[in-house]
Amino acid sequence: MQNTYVMVGNADSCPDIRYLTGFSAPDDVVVAVSGKKRVLIVNDMEYGRALSEARGCEVVSHSQLLGVRKRGGEAALVKAWLVREGLPAEVICSGRYFPFCVAAALNDEGIRAVPGEDAGLRQARMVKSPEEVSFIAEVQNTARAAMSAAGRMIADAVPGSDGILNLDGKTLTSEMLRSEIRKVCMERGCIDEGTIAAGGEQAVNPHECGHGPLRTGEWIVVDIFPRSLDTGYHGDMTRTFANGRVSGRRMDMYKAVEEAQKLALSMLGPGVSGASVHRAVADFFYVSGFRTAFGEEGASGFFHSTGHGVGLEIHEEPRLSSRGGMLSAGMTVTVEPGLYYPGLGGVRIEDLALVTGDGCMVL
Amino acid sequence: MQNTYVMVGNADSCPDIRYLTGFSAPDDVVVAVSGKKRVLIVNDMEYGRALSEARGCEVVSHSQLLGVRKRGGEAALVKAWLVREGLPAEVICSGRYFPFCVAAALNDEGIRAVPGEDAGLRQARMVKSPEEVSFIAEVQNTARAAMSAAGRMIADAVPGSDGILNLDGKTLTSEMLRSEIRKVCMERGCIDEGTIAAGGEQAVNPHECGHGPLRTGEWIVVDIFPRSLDTGYHGDMTRTFANGRVSGRRMDMYKAVEEAQKLALSMLGPGVSGASVHRAVADFFYVSGFRTAFGEEGASGFFHSTGHGVGLEIHEEPRLSSRGGMLSAGMTVTVEPGLYYPGLGGVRIEDLALVTGDGCMVL
Repeated sequence: MQNTYVMVGNADSCPDIRYLTGFSAPDDVVVAVSGKKRVLIVNDMEYGRALSEARGCEVVSHSQLLGVRKRGGEAALVKAWLVREGLPAEVICSGRYFPFCVAAALNDEGIRAVPGEDAGLRQARMVKSPEEVSFIAEVQNTARAAMSAAGRMIADAVPGSDGILNLDGKTLTSEMLRSEIRKVCMERGCIDEGTIAAGGEQAVNPHECGHGPLRTGEWIVVDIFPRSLDTGYHGDMTRTFANGRVSGRRMDMYKAVEEAQKLALSMLGPGVSGASVHRAVADFFYVSGFRTAFGEEGASGFFHSTGHGVGLEIHEEPRLSSRGGMLSAGMTVTVEPGLYYPGLGGVRIEDLALVTGDGCMVL
Repeated sequence: MQNTYVMVGNADSCPDIRYLTGFSAPDDVVVAVSGKKRVLIVNDMEYGRALSEARGCEVVSHSQLLGVRKRGGEAALVKAWLVREGLPAEVICSGRYFPFCVAAALNDEGIRAVPGEDAGLRQARMVKSPEEVSFIAEVQNTARAAMSAAGRMIADAVPGSDGILNLDGKTLTSEMLRSEIRKVCMERGCIDEGTIAAGGEQAVNPHECGHGPLRTGEWIVVDIFPRSLDTGYHGDMTRTFANGRVSGRRMDMYKAVEEAQKLALSMLGPGVSGASVHRAVADFFYVSGFRTAFGEEGASGFFHSTGHGVGLEIHEEPRLSSRGGMLSAGMTVTVEPGLYYPGLGGVRIEDLALVTGDGCMVL
C-alpha cells in the first residue's frame, strides 16, 4: 500500500513545504503526498499566488476542496482530499512541528494519524542540487564579506591603558561589531539573526552572543549565519580574532583548533561517516592535551558537535557528531571545531564545505 | 487537580515561550507550567545564557534533570520533571506547533498527552502591557517611516507616454519600492519580510507581493509589517497610493475604504465584539454598492477580515472577523478594510490601534 504523507505549516515551521513545492507560505498550508501525487492546499486568498509560484505539485484552494465559502480546518481539508483521491483514511504526519492539535483533529475525523518525521525528504534535502549549492555559496559570500568587515574593525582598534579597545574615538563593543555585520548582510539581501561577537570569558559559552567592550589580547569569536531573504538558504562561518598579542596557552588553543579543522576537512568525503570525523576531532584534542569536562553547571574543552548540514535550515542533517551518519557528494556541512576554557576564553573556526565525489570543497 | 502545561519549541515556532520566560531560544526548549511553578528546560550549552536572560521561571539544564551527559528527548525531560515535582503523568500540550512526534513520545513514556492551545496565555497575550505597547508603537513608527519613503517615490515618479512610472531615469517597480522599504526598516533594527507593493491588477489579490513596473492612474497597495530584531514585536500598516489621476469608480473605492476604516475605528472599544465591527464594515460596503462575490477561482469585493491582533506574532488574537470575540483595553488590533475588483485594482488602508478605556488610539 502507498503511504500518504501530510505536512501542515508555513515557510518557518515546515521548510519541507518550501523544499517540495517552492511555495513560501506566510500562513499555514497543507501539503499531501501519495506516491507521485503532490498537492498544495491553500486558502482562497493565496490560490492565485500559489498557482503562479508553486512547482511540481497540484494547487487546490479550500473552496475547491470543501465548496465555496465552506470553512474547515486542516483535518477537514485532508479528509476531503483523501476522499477525492479514493485513498484510505490513514496518513503519516510529517515534519518536526506537525501540530499535535491537527493530528488530534484528524483522529476525530476518523483518520488514523501516525507521527513520522520523514517523507523521504530528510534524505533528499541532505543532498543539495547545483542550484541549492549556488544559493548557499552566495549567502556564504555574504558571511565572508561581513566577517572581513568585523575583522577589519578589530584589527584597526587601538587598546587603551586599561586594555579596552577603541575605534575612531569610541569603545569597540560586541554590539558595534554586530551592527556592522548586519549592515553588510542587509545590503546583500540577507538577515543575520543571532550573530555572535563575543570576547574573552563571554566566549567560553559558545552560544553567548556577546555584549559590551572588547579587550586586547583576548580571543573574540565571531559567528555569522545569515539567511537569504530571497532564496531562504543559509550560510555559516566563524572566525576567532584577536587584537594584539595573545598569551602562550591561548595561542596553543588556536593552533589546535586550526589543526583540528584541517584534519576534519581532510577526512570529508563520500562514504565517510559524520561520527568518524567527529571522533577524530575529539581524539585529536585529547592527545593534544585539550581535555573536555562536563559538569552540572556547564562544560569545558570541546563539547559541541564538529558540524551540521546547512540549507533551508541553519541546523539540518547530516550531523558531524557522535550520531552522524554517512556523507555523500552534494551535502553541505559546517566544520567547526572549538575549544572553550574559563580563564582562556573560546576559539572556534568554522567553514562550510561541499562534499564532492572525492573529498570536499570549502565554499 | 492542577493542570500541567508543556510547551516545546523555539522563538519562532512557539512565541508563548518568549512571552512567558523572556528567553529567545534559537534551538528547541521545553517549558512546563504547573500552577505558579514555571520551569524552562534548556540544553547544557544554553544554561548560562538562560540563567541570565530568563525571568519569572526556574531554569534547569538537561544534565540537572537527567544526570550529567545523559541524553534524552523532550519526553524524557518532561517525565523527569513530573517525577521531580511529584506530579501526575498527564500534561496539556500547549501551542499551535506543539510537535506531534513529541506528544507521541510522551504517550510512549506513559504520560497522557492532551492537545490544548491554551495555558491561559492566549487571553493574557491579547492584552498588552505598557512595555509591549511601547515596543509595538516603536515598530509602527518604523513602518510609518518606510511608508513615507515609499509614498515619496511614487509621488516623485513621472509617467512616460506608456503610463509607466519613471524615477530618476529608471522605471519605478514594485521591487524598487520594497528595496527602499527594507533599507528604512533595517536602519531601524527591523526586518520586513513579505512586504507588499502591488499596483493595478496585481493588487486584486491582497497577498500578491507585487512585481515589475508601476503605472500612473492605478492604485498601488503598500503593506508593511516589520518585526523588531531586538524585541520580537511587530508593526503593521497599509496605504494605497496613486501617481496621477485615478478614474471615478476607483476613487469611489478609495473613499469607501476610507469611510469604512473611520467607521471601524469609531466603534473600537472595550466590550465591543470584533464580530460586530467586522459586520458593520461589511454592511457599510454592501449599502455603499460595493458587493462581495465568492467563486472557486477567487473572490472580489471585501473578503478578508477587518483586522487582527498584533504582537509577538503578526497575526494573533483578537480577530475583527465574523468569529471575533470581545475587545478589552490594552489590545492592539489592525483596522484594515479593503476592496478588490478585477479591472479596478485593490485599495486597502490599515492602521494599528490600541483599545483604550473608552475607545481606541491609533498608534
